[in-house]
Amino acid sequence: MGDLPAEFSLIARHFRPLAGPGALGLRDDAAVLAPPAGRELVLTVDAMVAGVHFLPDDPADLVGRKLLRVNLSDLAAKGAVPLGYLMTVSAPRGTPEDWFAGFAAGLAADQARFGISLLGGDTTSTPGPLSLSLTAIGHVAPGTAVHRFGARPNDALWVTGTIGDGALGLAVLQGRLADPSGWLAERYRLPRPRVGLAIAGIASAGMDVSDGLVQDLGHLCRASELMAEVAADAVPLSAAARAAGPDWLETCLTGGDDYELLLAVPPSLEAALTAAAAAAEVPVTRIGTLQSGRPEVRVRDAGGAVLTFAKGGWSHF
Amino acid sequence: MGDLPAEFSLIARHFRPLAGPGALGLRDDAAVLAPPAGRELVLTVDAMVAGVHFLPDDPADLVGRKLLRVNLSDLAAKGAVPLGYLMTVSAPRGTPEDWFAGFAAGLAADQARFGISLLGGDTTSTPGPLSLSLTAIGHVAPGTAVHRFGARPNDALWVTGTIGDGALGLAVLQGRLADPSGWLAERYRLPRPRVGLAIAGIASAGMDVSDGLVQDLGHLCRASELMAEVAADAVPLSAAARAAGPDWLETCLTGGDDYELLLAVPPSLEAALTAAAAAAEVPVTRIGTLQSGRPEVRVRDAGGAVLTFAKGGWSHF
Repeated sequence: MGDLPAEFSLIARHFRPLAGPGALGLRDDAAVLAPPAGRELVLTVDAMVAGVHFLPDDPADLVGRKLLRVNLSDLAAKGAVPLGYLMTVSAPRGTPEDWFAGFAAGLAADQARFGISLLGGDTTSTPGPLSLSLTAIGHVAPGTAVHRFGARPNDALWVTGTIGDGALGLAVLQGRLADPSGWLAERYRLPRPRVGLAIAGIASAGMDVSDGLVQDLGHLCRASELMAEVAADAVPLSAAARAAGPDWLETCLTGGDDYELLLAVPPSLEAALTAAAAAAEVPVTRIGTLQSGRPEVRVRDAGGAVLTFAKGGWSHF
Repeated sequence: MGDLPAEFSLIARHFRPLAGPGALGLRDDAAVLAPPAGRELVLTVDAMVAGVHFLPDDPADLVGRKLLRVNLSDLAAKGAVPLGYLMTVSAPRGTPEDWFAGFAAGLAADQARFGISLLGGDTTSTPGPLSLSLTAIGHVAPGTAVHRFGARPNDALWVTGTIGDGALGLAVLQGRLADPSGWLAERYRLPRPRVGLAIAGIASAGMDVSDGLVQDLGHLCRASELMAEVAADAVPLSAAARAAGPDWLETCLTGGDDYELLLAVPPSLEAALTAAAAAAEVPVTRIGTLQSGRPEVRVRDAGGAVLTFAKGGWSHF
């Protein structure tokens, strides 16, 4: 047939090496997957658009890794084991070959790290900015997936890692904040999904923090029909976030892009959580409790006063 | 918590009614799905961008239905039974509420028609054109999925429906061709996925025709390592396509957006195909054969001369 059209040679060069066994070398209309016997599947999808979810000049490998990792974070929030993913790439005509190479290299690195492979995809042109989507598939033992609902009164609230770095990292990349160590920008560009933290059977409810701690905790409160009490001082901040100073606390608590887990844990299981966290080498911190009451998030300062925020979190519309 | 941010109320109003049992009301980070016991899953994804895959002023309900149907067509090409889907919608700020309502109404109509439901999604803003992606999931008996590979010498080539209407429909909507009956525009805007045509065990290979018959047949030839002989006169054209005249034949054979099935069928199973097609009320037509030889597509006119085409089909880059 002579030369393949450019679209297909692009896929062959950069994306075929990422394909797993069920993906049929990306040569077919669809992937075939034998689901692990006796397991339930967990499915999640996220879109990322240049200029909205990442900066147009972000390194291509980090864009690929972030796209994968934000979805792995959703799987981690359910307690699921990652299995594979499908992806769409809508790129402006003239996107350099180097960009695709870098993007695929980032995905390849994270595929190896997280033990998953590409199952299928679609590559198209767009007159607009680079637009990506990724559907991730994982699996759990039947009935063990962690949900936003299910928390009980007196459950403790825990978070993984540190909160606010992503939002501060965006401010750094926009030139609004200094970042001598580079930690904040790194955290914005490269989330660390908490895959491997065994929360099934421990967390009564949970989710990943992607739209801001206060807003996402509000979702958990509504789904579980409980009120949250959070001590602002207890929310774990990185050294770089603390160095930004108290003016940035609200950004830390309401900004997005944390990709840490927010977990409700019954008092009797808090020791199990800290043991699981130690086993997975994931730092966890207790930030408050859930109580009976109208769904609401109360964040209190050291003096006990309830803090108010200009916005609860990130909304696209 | 007071009013939900606009993004979440938009999802609640328009997309939550589409959600199936595993989708948890779209209130969670991910869907949970118990795969049908003893079946393999089939997974496919497609992206659609306004101005590339559909026209910016196409009716919103038809955009939703086309997005779903192009993926159902990929499932049909594997012989799979549709199960559910995940979707991303990246919409310009200020996209009217009516657009979302129409888009969801189109999806709702087709969900009922094809017996599937929404499992999860992501709604974001974009500074560019409306960008959509949809991941569809179906299932097949283990080992029965139809692939692009697997055809044998002397297999007959069959197609469903009529070829070329979609490409001509695009020409109509661009003002380059008349369409007194409206058939061509309708076929561009609303593919008819051949879900329900029982090709498993009958087709030795197959795919859906989405990038043009000649190009897609080339993919099947390469995957099966065979040469194709097609009689141009045998390719089924609609009355509207025939009325466009011979100048449009090349567009019919090499244009995209057919979403019909292209099947390789051993001679001993051609009667089974026509019986399955009759049962599913899907017209099928024999257009040629596959032979040993270097992968290549030869389309011959009535006099036996091999036709040449300016382009083999649609490529995005």
